[in-house]
Amino acid sequence: MIPPFERLAIIGLGLIGSSIARAARKAGAAKTIVAIDRDATVRERVSALGLADEVTGNAAKGVAGADMIVLCVPVMANAAVGATIGPHLAPGAIVSDVGSVKGSVVRDVGPHMPGGVHFVPAHPVAGTEDSGPDAGFAELFVNRWSILTPPPDTAPAAIERTKAFWEAMGSNVEVMTPEHHDLVLAITSHVPHLIAYNIVGTAADMEAVTQGEVIKFSAGGFRDFTRIAASDPTMWRDVFLTNKDAVLEMLGRFNEDLAALQRAIRWGDGDALHALFTRTRAIRRGIIASGQETAAPNFGRKPEPLPETVEAKPQ
Amino acid sequence: MIPPFERLAIIGLGLIGSSIARAARKAGAAKTIVAIDRDATVRERVSALGLADEVTGNAAKGVAGADMIVLCVPVMANAAVGATIGPHLAPGAIVSDVGSVKGSVVRDVGPHMPGGVHFVPAHPVAGTEDSGPDAGFAELFVNRWSILTPPPDTAPAAIERTKAFWEAMGSNVEVMTPEHHDLVLAITSHVPHLIAYNIVGTAADMEAVTQGEVIKFSAGGFRDFTRIAASDPTMWRDVFLTNKDAVLEMLGRFNEDLAALQRAIRWGDGDALHALFTRTRAIRRGIIASGQETAAPNFGRKPEPLPETVEAKPQ
Repeated sequence: MIPPFERLAIIGLGLIGSSIARAARKAGAAKTIVAIDRDATVRERVSALGLADEVTGNAAKGVAGADMIVLCVPVMANAAVGATIGPHLAPGAIVSDVGSVKGSVVRDVGPHMPGGVHFVPAHPVAGTEDSGPDAGFAELFVNRWSILTPPPDTAPAAIERTKAFWEAMGSNVEVMTPEHHDLVLAITSHVPHLIAYNIVGTAADMEAVTQGEVIKFSAGGFRDFTRIAASDPTMWRDVFLTNKDAVLEMLGRFNEDLAALQRAIRWGDGDALHALFTRTRAIRRGIIASGQETAAPNFGRKPEPLPETVEAKPQ
Repeated sequence: MIPPFERLAIIGLGLIGSSIARAARKAGAAKTIVAIDRDATVRERVSALGLADEVTGNAAKGVAGADMIVLCVPVMANAAVGATIGPHLAPGAIVSDVGSVKGSVVRDVGPHMPGGVHFVPAHPVAGTEDSGPDAGFAELFVNRWSILTPPPDTAPAAIERTKAFWEAMGSNVEVMTPEHHDLVLAITSHVPHLIAYNIVGTAADMEAVTQGEVIKFSAGGFRDFTRIAASDPTMWRDVFLTNKDAVLEMLGRFNEDLAALQRAIRWGDGDALHALFTRTRAIRRGIIASGQETAAPNFGRKPEPLPETVEAKPQ
């Protein structure tokens, strides 16, 4: 068993950062946890929730002496954070992050890392639609995958340490290149978010259908999309701006496929529709079998009971 | 309180039909429940589950003497069922259905209804991704909306009776024209299903990303879409073929909006992205406030606990 870190510095105590604080403490993955956030309101909540041993708005001070620093800020904020903390990092420290795009973090943070500091970018593929330090929880990463994208010359021991850190929080770990990561996540995360945001916007803009009707009849499928369309706007703006090429490539494929479906509907090609609708069932079965999804119908949403007065109605 | 029906005939014991059988019995909404299905395997399950008082494959016999008949078959099967049962319907009986498209059922079933029979098409906006008689449950319709689309000359008493029937099963009821229904559902249900099926298909067809990777990293958002893309293929093929015009109209709007988003990404227009991503949060809040969705993060999917060995690890 790898020993805990002496001093874990978490920069940005949103959903992910605050979940790491909770999980790392519960797993005993660090002796001291330092919470760094530039937002005073967030710092107050972190203190009130008792998520860290030290809470500071001063990143330079916060990272001093830390042997693990995790950047948990929107991806486009990484460059500035890297520049700020670079000169204050202790030799031998590991710097990691949790960004949903990895090419940009390598590009933006890497150059600020001094010699002797290990840079091991990471992306835990986990989350909810909620944001902020109150939304986090220790179990967020359990059985989810964290992807590490270390530069080719990274010390194997630093990669192992980072891997062990995520495993201690219940995560599975895979290592790949930033380029492959950004392609995979474009289709499993970024484009799904984009089309969810898009259809919610389309529905909101109807003239012939009122917003009240969209809300009332959302159980027909629409409500599912509103969950990921309620995700943090800044985080997602940054994802699309920094993973532009892969997102546009995947979106091109999505659009081609949708055009083919649209044509099948226009021309009444029921066989083509049925064939696709049958094929897609297998993927969900695979996701459930792999433990990445609940097998419960409707994601396990609980139905409400029949009204008492109705059940008691005599025949 | 409206008295129960003497004889409720349900044609097609899938998810919806079997849920009606369960809910109607629990609510005391019918004295006798007759289950009619042409599939012997389904009839066997219905009998084994004890969902009905009579189980038959003979629709003509099953509807004889029934005062409420509910068609619960894929929408393109309605015409044939209407033709079969028409001559055997008792005067004063109400014929209803549960189809996701209402223009086509009015067109396909209406002409087969003899004089003295009331035709009150209905659509309960409720369901899960599962199919068949084992998937149904009595609480499926609680706090969901059922939409009635009676022809203009329908007897008000028949509409009231049908409304009371759905209310007894816990449903809210709204009355509108078939045309408006088909437009509303195109955006709240049909297009969402289409784009879910589509992205699951796109992901399955990648060469650069393996199916194993799609499954592993599906918690990034993709897995949400696989739920509705696991819905019944025949039911959904029929929906798209019978609500073609409204679906193509809504899909056109979706595509226009997506093209604008795609352009914003290509040109780095972060403000446009952020503005949309902020606006879409309000819709989810409305859906939760209206009771059509759970407020629990991740639809209430339960996280697993941290592994015991990890939690017990000494500092």
